[in-house]
Amino acid sequence: MKMLVIFTHPNHTSLSYAFLQQVIQGSSENERIEEVQVLDLYAESFNPVLVFNEDKRRRDMHKDPELEQYRKQLLWADKIVLVYPIWWGRPPAMLLGYIDQLFASNFAYRDKKGLLPEGLLKGKSVVCISTMKGPALYPLLWLNNAHKVLMRKALFRYVGIKSVKFFEFGGMEKPNGQQKNKLDKVYRYFRAVTS
Amino acid sequence: MKMLVIFTHPNHTSLSYAFLQQVIQGSSENERIEEVQVLDLYAESFNPVLVFNEDKRRRDMHKDPELEQYRKQLLWADKIVLVYPIWWGRPPAMLLGYIDQLFASNFAYRDKKGLLPEGLLKGKSVVCISTMKGPALYPLLWLNNAHKVLMRKALFRYVGIKSVKFFEFGGMEKPNGQQKNKLDKVYRYFRAVTS
Repeated sequence: MKMLVIFTHPNHTSLSYAFLQQVIQGSSENERIEEVQVLDLYAESFNPVLVFNEDKRRRDMHKDPELEQYRKQLLWADKIVLVYPIWWGRPPAMLLGYIDQLFASNFAYRDKKGLLPEGLLKGKSVVCISTMKGPALYPLLWLNNAHKVLMRKALFRYVGIKSVKFFEFGGMEKPNGQQKNKLDKVYRYFRAVTS
Repeated sequence: MKMLVIFTHPNHTSLSYAFLQQVIQGSSENERIEEVQVLDLYAESFNPVLVFNEDKRRRDMHKDPELEQYRKQLLWADKIVLVYPIWWGRPPAMLLGYIDQLFASNFAYRDKKGLLPEGLLKGKSVVCISTMKGPALYPLLWLNNAHKVLMRKALFRYVGIKSVKFFEFGGMEKPNGQQKNKLDKVYRYFRAVTS
């Protein structure tokens, strides 16, 4: 199994970064995972702003040479792991901009008759690891689970990815937020994951 | 009434731009609206990437000098109108990055005891005008209304803004999508809006 970890946080002293380390450590002890690539969007100075206009057509986005390396990396991966904080109920603009830029028509999906397109990233699986300040039940009880719905249905299902697992950790700025237990949970998951 | 229109689309030949024009035209015929400012995030080359780290502390974001003009503009406005397309079930990363950057603690809200903070943008009203390719009922039936929930509850309610109106237009790439009727609806709304 080849694994791409997309990390989105500006600060390497953050709790998000500690979760990234657990993903890497657990994976390194899992013989089913043959290679891990980390894409650190902030460290990479990724440009999250999707532009299309008269000169740069939207229909050509799927072959934009500037994004070639990132498309290759996505195609290479069997498993895509996203590590990010929740800001305003959803991932940071940086990560959503990576999606705006990369998940182009004729790369991630192909339009066909009917409501849903043909997903071109079929067969991959996704794990989303997110941290938030508010309580863990806040998105479920107050936000109709908007974050998970957007990731699972509006995004990954649309490009053909049905296997999406979430670790959505709340209360992460609390002294008693069980940060250590949660870090350990992620470590143990990646040490043992089989597909 | 002072009105700020935040426009987020890379292309001025887009339908989103046509909606912007209707907002401006309708408002210009409404004597209750004394001044309109337009913030075109793409034209402005706005940087949507929120950075905080050891050198640039998150707690100082609310007084970041580079964002001073944008904070003033937000405070100045009685009504904030957002015009944008829906990508992957939510606004473009550019607009969400404007929010990541601007809506800082101690500018847009202030933490206090209890679940919800004190909203510091109280008294303002918001109108969201969005266009999408998919059918109008898709977000409601398939996505738990995630887009509206995120804007209304996770964002504006949090900073004290209770009045949030949506024009969420679907089927916008269809030849029979009633684009003209919808443009006219927005024009008539802004010509007559009283608060």
